Amino acid sequence: MNQEIVRLPAQTGLMIIDVQRAIDDPKWTAVGPRNNLQGEANIAALLAGWRRAAYPIIHVRHDSRFPASPYRPGQPGNEFKEEVRPNPGELVVAKRTNSAFIGTDLESTLRASGIDTLVIAGVITNNSVESTVRMSGNLGFKTYLVEDACWTFARLDYAGRLRSAEEVHAMSLANMAPEYCTVLRSDQIEALPGFVRVARHAGPE
Amino acid sequence: MNQEIVRLPAQTGLMIIDVQRAIDDPKWTAVGPRNNLQGEANIAALLAGWRRAAYPIIHVRHDSRFPASPYRPGQPGNEFKEEVRPNPGELVVAKRTNSAFIGTDLESTLRASGIDTLVIAGVITNNSVESTVRMSGNLGFKTYLVEDACWTFARLDYAGRLRSAEEVHAMSLANMAPEYCTVLRSDQIEALPGFVRVARHAGPE
Repeated sequence: MNQEIVRLPAQTGLMIIDVQRAIDDPKWTAVGPRNNLQGEANIAALLAGWRRAAYPIIHVRHDSRFPASPYRPGQPGNEFKEEVRPNPGELVVAKRTNSAFIGTDLESTLRASGIDTLVIAGVITNNSVESTVRMSGNLGFKTYLVEDACWTFARLDYAGRLRSAEEVHAMSLANMAPEYCTVLRSDQIEALPGFVRVARHAGPE
Repeated sequence: MNQEIVRLPAQTGLMIIDVQRAIDDPKWTAVGPRNNLQGEANIAALLAGWRRAAYPIIHVRHDSRFPASPYRPGQPGNEFKEEVRPNPGELVVAKRTNSAFIGTDLESTLRASGIDTLVIAGVITNNSVESTVRMSGNLGFKTYLVEDACWTFARLDYAGRLRSAEEVHAMSLANMAPEYCTVLRSDQIEALPGFVRVARHAGPE
């Protein structure tokens, strides 16, 4: 791998999107299984690194407006998954729609805190993650997406062809990078007090 | 086809995204050809219908900030394609990034004009069109996307697999519908003074 050290500002925020118990609901795997079973463990490792470095952390919680959604507030699915539960004092942004920037004060909070760089993880790659990454990049935040700290599910494309979770994930990443974000693997990021080490991804192997 | 008449409000805006001469630059077809060669003709027909009905029209022009982009202002590529050239007095929104809602006054203009429903067309399906459709839906606009009035190009997915323009287009539509928009074909829309006729799409045929 082509290694590179990139110094990220101390105000680099780790943003974790929609990793709540609802994402384990069987409804998501109706067409086929998810990809990246290591996703939660990889996010937990990033979170531990950010806590050690005392870097800013943004937990995004999806509070669905739809009665049938397992993400609706008041249901067990609305709770954060154990691996990514916020510590007391960590910022939690509640959203009602897909993008974490719409209907929330996320943008103004980031600007007020001097956070201009985001490392993004969560679910699902091609829905709330992609909507948030597209907006993050277009709003001018330097945006990194951690490909093995996200996952998605198999689905039919609009022509009715079955696409595996890995295919959906790979197409979503291609839509986002490099135009809206830089894609990294979690083992290319190491949080240390004062800087984060990033190794450039050499591309598909 | 399962026909259905939907009455759209008279303040339904037709929004045409990035259909400028730059989209014919050979750079876009480096990996493979575009899909939907009828795209311009279909947009022109929508535009003619909207003009007959005196419904609102929003032309979105991409003014790229990047020196190498054929969309950069001052180059021939920045001009609208002949088929979709705005008439005097029609609204033109200039944008510098992918989403037409970022860095522009599009949202406030629509709200001030009482426009809460949008019919969207343009290029490319999985980039500026998709970013704008995702935001339109999340911002609460009733959003329709005209599948045969959009097009895209072949590309490699993030795993390095070649995806035809038709595959890229079909995956993008599946990401957008029904969560962010309703997808229609142009022959399901007819603009008439006072209402627009929409026939429900029966799904892949």
